[in-house]
Amino acid sequence: MPYDYLPRLLRPSESKIVLLVLDGLGGLPIEAGGPTELEAAATPNMDQLASEGTLGQTIPIRAGITPGSGPAHLALFGYDPLVYEVGRGALSAAGVGLEVKPGDVAARGNFCTLDAEGLITDRRAGRISSEAAAPLVEKLREIEIPGVEIEVEPVKEYRFTVVMRGEGLNANLKDTDPQKTGVPPLPVQTDEPASERAADLFNQWVAEARQILADPPGNPASGVTLRGFATDPALQPYQEAYGLKAACVAVYPMYRGVSKLVGMDVIQFDGEYPQDEFAAVKKAWKDYDFFFIHIKKTDSMGEDGDFEGKAKIIESVDAALPQLLDLKPDVLIITGDHSTPARMKSHSWHPVPLLLWAPATHLSDSQMQFGERACAQGGLGTFPALDTMSLALAHAGRLNKYGA
Amino acid sequence: MPYDYLPRLLRPSESKIVLLVLDGLGGLPIEAGGPTELEAAATPNMDQLASEGTLGQTIPIRAGITPGSGPAHLALFGYDPLVYEVGRGALSAAGVGLEVKPGDVAARGNFCTLDAEGLITDRRAGRISSEAAAPLVEKLREIEIPGVEIEVEPVKEYRFTVVMRGEGLNANLKDTDPQKTGVPPLPVQTDEPASERAADLFNQWVAEARQILADPPGNPASGVTLRGFATDPALQPYQEAYGLKAACVAVYPMYRGVSKLVGMDVIQFDGEYPQDEFAAVKKAWKDYDFFFIHIKKTDSMGEDGDFEGKAKIIESVDAALPQLLDLKPDVLIITGDHSTPARMKSHSWHPVPLLLWAPATHLSDSQMQFGERACAQGGLGTFPALDTMSLALAHAGRLNKYGA
Repeated sequence: MPYDYLPRLLRPSESKIVLLVLDGLGGLPIEAGGPTELEAAATPNMDQLASEGTLGQTIPIRAGITPGSGPAHLALFGYDPLVYEVGRGALSAAGVGLEVKPGDVAARGNFCTLDAEGLITDRRAGRISSEAAAPLVEKLREIEIPGVEIEVEPVKEYRFTVVMRGEGLNANLKDTDPQKTGVPPLPVQTDEPASERAADLFNQWVAEARQILADPPGNPASGVTLRGFATDPALQPYQEAYGLKAACVAVYPMYRGVSKLVGMDVIQFDGEYPQDEFAAVKKAWKDYDFFFIHIKKTDSMGEDGDFEGKAKIIESVDAALPQLLDLKPDVLIITGDHSTPARMKSHSWHPVPLLLWAPATHLSDSQMQFGERACAQGGLGTFPALDTMSLALAHAGRLNKYGA
Repeated sequence: MPYDYLPRLLRPSESKIVLLVLDGLGGLPIEAGGPTELEAAATPNMDQLASEGTLGQTIPIRAGITPGSGPAHLALFGYDPLVYEVGRGALSAAGVGLEVKPGDVAARGNFCTLDAEGLITDRRAGRISSEAAAPLVEKLREIEIPGVEIEVEPVKEYRFTVVMRGEGLNANLKDTDPQKTGVPPLPVQTDEPASERAADLFNQWVAEARQILADPPGNPASGVTLRGFATDPALQPYQEAYGLKAACVAVYPMYRGVSKLVGMDVIQFDGEYPQDEFAAVKKAWKDYDFFFIHIKKTDSMGEDGDFEGKAKIIESVDAALPQLLDLKPDVLIITGDHSTPARMKSHSWHPVPLLLWAPATHLSDSQMQFGERACAQGGLGTFPALDTMSLALAHAGRLNKYGA
């Protein structure tokens, strides 16, 4: 659970908090002495907020630790990812609306291509489209294993999620993707007797999947690998931890999933641009205390090594920002879940810029621009991402004094 | 106890440490872009120290947590208030010189006004003066309850402290102040069987108090409420934790109380102004290694919303500072226990400015003025108030190397 001293300090309030997360926001200069993606982007609105509010930088997990998306978001939400290890399977299942209860086992699956000898020739089945994958998932749903109930949902392209329910299951199972081609998928294995039944059942399921997918011959999705076996992490819901009725506005299933795991409602909306997400927030504004808004493409551009593209996404968020400000949030935090410097084409461990704007209570520092260097000198200092929600609650007037 | 790695590193020294605490020092600008109280105050002496020494800002308890005075001071003294929850009763008793041993139960009391039906019409009995309260406390001392010993001491105005001693007492009792008028005081209640005896005895005491106070009719202090039931928190004394013979110079009982709980001697002196407190330090200078000096009125002015008044108190401390500097302390730390921005008229969670001046070992940063914005950029960075004593000991040459 998040900080256990918070629930008893909670105070009812009508205030509204917005946590706007630009995935992988933190960056690096392409050349020494140059600006980062965020510094290079023209962000007049964020700069205005930066000059009025307070900046800081967060450590996502611990110093030097590069987080995956799940742990990074859990940390921002106030759940220490070193304590709560939520498997990719549970995140993924939540993201596609599959229920995972304690004792159920969820896994993320990938279609892969197997040759005649059963060796992997493509770990992502030629990156088949969501349309091509849908009927294959239908086929997988036909598999029946005595004693357990199984659900399968498509995720995106070659990805799917599978959940197994029944007696005596445990999720301490190893990934079956060998991470290379020319070898067969690994069997589902475990080091723990209590998980052996689940391993056997998943191996049966994989064998049946392979039979089903063998027809028609030449189908690129002729096999499956499974990863991130996990059960329900039983995270304390936002309402209990923070007294917040919370909503998630996100395009990608993973982020909806992690939001659901902490008890947020997922807002359905059309479109995929910042203005679409902000419009969805506006529509639901009266019904919630807290909005988590997730922008994915900053991270995707970073992963692609596209410095300019990442800066342009940041600019598109900035351009749409007045829509959000018109709602007059009491607290607006703009930050990332981790850094994804285009120069590195990957997530990284660097501190993440954070902007806190709460006109009733922020102490404006002397920083005038939203960027990594300004944030490193900001009034909030360098702090764990885990503290973000505490700061949000305090600035929203939602915490009583501790002690007399 | 404070950090458990400190005692075995302690090194004898003749050095002197002064911790000067301006209660509620941290502030906010009244208008966006303006200075805080500390920044607005003319503080030539503190600015000189700031330019020679090192600045930083502390987090009193945890991010976003607004501390009460007791927990905030415990943190500054190095005792984590989330671990050591010291009840107001124990603080208050220590402050007025009432001994509270393990098993004793102390509570803070308020006189209140009851109408003919026993409903509260004034929770503070018209804020009766200390002079008016003194004979009422005398009356309360007459109450005898078989099996226990009871002591009562006046605190200030309508406030008093009561301590009960005897077999089988426990302090897990609830406050009896209903926090509103038009209702009777609550009975002393507990959820725990082990505290039922204490609840019964305190209820007897309250009933007798009410009988005694009913005469003369029309006496505004016709009832009592009790709060902050607590026993001895058994805090490791300063001498053991830090090897320091420590003294407290404070005007208000609460702060003397928390100092006594950590083993400080309380220095008696006349007057209530900074120069009186500094004169008291001078008088006791040879007898102690460490002086905690508490200035209350910065907090009071902040609570009153008096920005100018708070700045003036800071200026009065600055003006008297040469008295303290003449003593040539080896380490002088000037800070607050928490923020009390006049704009908020209350304690707050904002980081607290800290000035460390230790000419033998400080690394002066590039800050030239003592203020929130300068401290946010200071050489000590942003750190937990809990670390303050460790820094003081180090700069005083009182800590050996850890490991070879």
